[in-house]
Amino acid sequence: MVFGNMGEDCATGVAFTRDPSTGENLFYGEYLVNAQGEDVVAGIRTPQHLTVQGKVAQNSDAPAMEETMPEVFQQLDAVRAKLESHYRDMQDIEFTVQRGKLFMLQTRNGKRTAKAALKIAVDMVRDGVIDKKEAVARIVPSSLDQLLHPTLDPKAVRKVIAKGLPASPGAASGKIVFTADDAEKQAYAGEKVILVRRETSPEDIHGMHAAQGILTSTGGMTSHAAVVARGMGRPCVAGAGDVRIDAAKGTLSVRGTVVNAGEQITLDGTTGEIMLGVVPTVQPELSGDFAELMTWADELRTMRVRTNAETPMDAAQARKFGAEGIGLCRTEHMFFEDGRLVAMRQMILSDDEKSRRAALAKIEPMQRQDFIDLFEIMAGLPVTIRLLDPPLHEFLPKTHAEMEQVATDLGVAVTEVDARAHKLHEFNPMLGHRGVRLGISYPEIYEMQARAIFEAVVEVQKKHGVTVIPEVMIPLVATRKEFDLMKVVIDQVAAEVGQLSGQKLEYLVGTMIELPRAALRAADIAESAEFFSFGTNDLTQTTFGLSRDDSASFLEKYQQRGILEHDPFATLDIEGVGELIEIACTRGRKTRPDIKLGICGEHGGDPASVFFCHKVGLDYVSCSPYRVPIARLAAAQAALGGLLKTE
Amino acid sequence: MVFGNMGEDCATGVAFTRDPSTGENLFYGEYLVNAQGEDVVAGIRTPQHLTVQGKVAQNSDAPAMEETMPEVFQQLDAVRAKLESHYRDMQDIEFTVQRGKLFMLQTRNGKRTAKAALKIAVDMVRDGVIDKKEAVARIVPSSLDQLLHPTLDPKAVRKVIAKGLPASPGAASGKIVFTADDAEKQAYAGEKVILVRRETSPEDIHGMHAAQGILTSTGGMTSHAAVVARGMGRPCVAGAGDVRIDAAKGTLSVRGTVVNAGEQITLDGTTGEIMLGVVPTVQPELSGDFAELMTWADELRTMRVRTNAETPMDAAQARKFGAEGIGLCRTEHMFFEDGRLVAMRQMILSDDEKSRRAALAKIEPMQRQDFIDLFEIMAGLPVTIRLLDPPLHEFLPKTHAEMEQVATDLGVAVTEVDARAHKLHEFNPMLGHRGVRLGISYPEIYEMQARAIFEAVVEVQKKHGVTVIPEVMIPLVATRKEFDLMKVVIDQVAAEVGQLSGQKLEYLVGTMIELPRAALRAADIAESAEFFSFGTNDLTQTTFGLSRDDSASFLEKYQQRGILEHDPFATLDIEGVGELIEIACTRGRKTRPDIKLGICGEHGGDPASVFFCHKVGLDYVSCSPYRVPIARLAAAQAALGGLLKTE
Repeated sequence: MVFGNMGEDCATGVAFTRDPSTGENLFYGEYLVNAQGEDVVAGIRTPQHLTVQGKVAQNSDAPAMEETMPEVFQQLDAVRAKLESHYRDMQDIEFTVQRGKLFMLQTRNGKRTAKAALKIAVDMVRDGVIDKKEAVARIVPSSLDQLLHPTLDPKAVRKVIAKGLPASPGAASGKIVFTADDAEKQAYAGEKVILVRRETSPEDIHGMHAAQGILTSTGGMTSHAAVVARGMGRPCVAGAGDVRIDAAKGTLSVRGTVVNAGEQITLDGTTGEIMLGVVPTVQPELSGDFAELMTWADELRTMRVRTNAETPMDAAQARKFGAEGIGLCRTEHMFFEDGRLVAMRQMILSDDEKSRRAALAKIEPMQRQDFIDLFEIMAGLPVTIRLLDPPLHEFLPKTHAEMEQVATDLGVAVTEVDARAHKLHEFNPMLGHRGVRLGISYPEIYEMQARAIFEAVVEVQKKHGVTVIPEVMIPLVATRKEFDLMKVVIDQVAAEVGQLSGQKLEYLVGTMIELPRAALRAADIAESAEFFSFGTNDLTQTTFGLSRDDSASFLEKYQQRGILEHDPFATLDIEGVGELIEIACTRGRKTRPDIKLGICGEHGGDPASVFFCHKVGLDYVSCSPYRVPIARLAAAQAALGGLLKTE
Repeated sequence: MVFGNMGEDCATGVAFTRDPSTGENLFYGEYLVNAQGEDVVAGIRTPQHLTVQGKVAQNSDAPAMEETMPEVFQQLDAVRAKLESHYRDMQDIEFTVQRGKLFMLQTRNGKRTAKAALKIAVDMVRDGVIDKKEAVARIVPSSLDQLLHPTLDPKAVRKVIAKGLPASPGAASGKIVFTADDAEKQAYAGEKVILVRRETSPEDIHGMHAAQGILTSTGGMTSHAAVVARGMGRPCVAGAGDVRIDAAKGTLSVRGTVVNAGEQITLDGTTGEIMLGVVPTVQPELSGDFAELMTWADELRTMRVRTNAETPMDAAQARKFGAEGIGLCRTEHMFFEDGRLVAMRQMILSDDEKSRRAALAKIEPMQRQDFIDLFEIMAGLPVTIRLLDPPLHEFLPKTHAEMEQVATDLGVAVTEVDARAHKLHEFNPMLGHRGVRLGISYPEIYEMQARAIFEAVVEVQKKHGVTVIPEVMIPLVATRKEFDLMKVVIDQVAAEVGQLSGQKLEYLVGTMIELPRAALRAADIAESAEFFSFGTNDLTQTTFGLSRDDSASFLEKYQQRGILEHDPFATLDIEGVGELIEIACTRGRKTRPDIKLGICGEHGGDPASVFFCHKVGLDYVSCSPYRVPIARLAAAQAALGGLLKTE
């Protein structure tokens, strides 16, 4: 037993060998003269800084150990260097000085922020303490999320009024608006807005894009708002149950506190906090250490990392984050935009193929331009385009007022709109008339999309002289025959466009594997399909018989009771869904050894799932733009055989 | 070349060696004097009967061949006997008589009605022409459906006004009613009624039971109406798109023809025809040849045949049809009955466990009586009871008027009912908060059901001295842990009831395998589960990602285009769903070699699916009462290695 409380030549203290907050190579710690360890912890006396530098930085008057016990401090500083070089990592140490003699009580790897972890790892490589592999292996991939988004200034005052789920990281402030249209209008006028909704739906996409952040009062971590916001990189607080939204009145209230439309709030999507007013934020730093570590990761990984994106903004953002192509372009998101929705609805209300084709003809030039934009941004990188997937009723209005508007827009009776909506209604839309089933029923839709794709290829190839090889993806295939019937349509269009343009068109036609049956029939499907992309969102839904939109109410209890270790929509269920993926890989390769394999579900950005994808030998993972760096790092660690636990 | 048209000593004719309509061992045929074969077919001249018996039976004046050409007829009759003894089956023959000399042109096995097939097979066994195995192998199992239901008198005049899908076989007449309540009320008053609905839902069950037949204007062969009607053995015509139903006005109309509430219609569920007025029917004959053949089938088969039943009426009917137990008792059907629904809703509206238990306490005695009735009817045969499965919102009212009624019934504000309904609403109820997920959220529900089961066992064992071994089935399991948590609840209740009663309770606890994940994890689940019952309806839905309620709109096109050979909800998809079943059987047996395996989806009554079940070694199939004989015959043929094609 040593005593730090035997007089003024005694002391006790705790220290980090580097700053655990910034990672700077500065000795960082506190000590108390004539005290035992518990006195530091108890907080009765205010500890003093170890170093003069620390004292100055914190505007402290109390003398530093470096000043009061310079000899002991020198010893401690030498121990610091020795420990770091021995353990090759930043240490969290405890010491006691008894009658002028230094005793070390404990040392362990120190906890640190993501920023610090990054800086420490990179610095240690520069100093030759560790190699690049070890640096890459040390960073917890998911911690990067803290670095990619604006964060709240830690020094700023926060007036928290409520808390929801931390659905999409980052911080944002703005005036509250209650409709997507208002969000778009005010953003166009230069305002920063926060979109506040009970829940969001595909029709809110333009408003979510226009907003700085999104707040919902219902829904979980995998609700529409949460998933879309993460994809867009918009901060989102979801399922804030205490928040009462009265969109008609234009108010948001939390137990007596009322915020009116136009007043400012701040969201912290990393903690789920909702604050009054504007809280200052700090912008992320993506160059320097971050960029360097990511380069090392890229050298190590064997899997490619693509992004799920359909807007030019997302695609460009993803490229900045290092995406090597698009793994999933959800074309249906393109149909919700202004001007297109009217034509889409006209198509849905059509009674025959001819009228459908007339409506589709209006959409085609816009679709073509969408693809031109994406091909230009991706500049020759692979782009996987998924043909129309959701059931048609998702495009129809829900309320009577909206139906009247649509009837007026299209010059038809409101009863007709209502009747069609009624006819298209489904009990389980997730398992309904969607994906390739739409293509089988209305081949003209997929034909139009294929034409838009190939015409865009022709235009971009002509303009930029780059070869564009689109990957056309057919969703929700359960049988090979479905795939074959649609491939005929696509090949036919490609041949036509190729002949008209005089260009040779290269392309792949493949399918999502998102139904258990498709996984089981993979050998057969791979006879025709040139690539598989695992749609693990839907594959999880069908394998578990679990609706992503409806499971929030009980999944939490499932985790509490130990039934599920993780939310299976966030981290791949390796025992169940994973086995189907393995089966599909094995069987697919049996028929087509060089079949291209990827994943495009949310899991593509989840480190544990990325590890699994590496293990089964996928060629790439695809994820939301803001998760691309995480996937790159996770893929590198997977190639190294795992993450080194440093904490 | 022989000529039957060279004079009055020439003739031509066709004949069946037995009556193809009844199967009676009577020579049955027609001939024309001085004619060629095409003259018989062309129908220009009216052919005469071969036999005097035939002539008399048909009140014909024209002389029989037996009279006009007695010698030739004797030769023909001898040939008839020779052909039958050679081919050992009823023959369809063609002959020509040229100048008094008989020439046989052709012989082949003759087409026949189900009734005739049965009689011929049984007669031939009696006559020693074929053995019992061959008799059993010759009957097309699905053809039995024609024999099990009342059928329209073939001689009666039919005034067909529309046609729908032949959703559940049999014929029925009655006054039309438009609500389940009206059906019940009028049936109680002794009226025969036909329930006419746009579509049916679980709340219509009591009306469907009360009705003679069911007619819907939407929905396919696997709609709620169709499935439930088949289960009940009620004739049903579903998806009659031409029928306009105006329940408010109380009219049903088809292109100008209007039928008012209270007027009579007749349905033929075997053809899908809807007729005006009452068309006379013929009752089925289940004894005699039918009973004899079924006994032979029972001797041959190795699989047991159980029934899906929850009402005493269905259970009793199924036993008449030879069911050897209940493979699926859907307890939720018991909650829709009078008196119970109120308590059920009270439970759903409860805010805490205590109130839920209070409401469940009201249901328990009724549940117990349900089980007592079933155990008594089944008299020691196994009874598998599935604990509550559907999402709770299925029990809540849908319209505002109904909600007000419920609010009044329960003494709560209508806003509260509305709020709860809103909270429970699901986007994909099939994949929602149902099955074991309810048991995890509200263990008190399963606890009440387990108590009702074991108390019923105690009572029946005491009263009848028979041992009742209930099989308690947990639905929608995806992980072993879910099962384990619920098994603890069931075991606990069993121990309590056993101790209180002083009886030793034997029971099994098992699970439905109805999710792909459960099939994959079968080895693990079988560590705890004592039996598996394949819920192939849901397993088909999840494996295909296909909603049974929503697929009618495109499944037809899928069959037309050759994507699917059969409706996968009618005939098991062996390549996909079948592989999961095989995987589950293999893995389940690996952990628990004696695990009891059965099937309780609709497929349990489909012959091709029954063949598959035999192949993978299931212990039993379970199906709707009216399909029990079909399953018995199919199981026998499966044991024999297949059906002999006789046509």
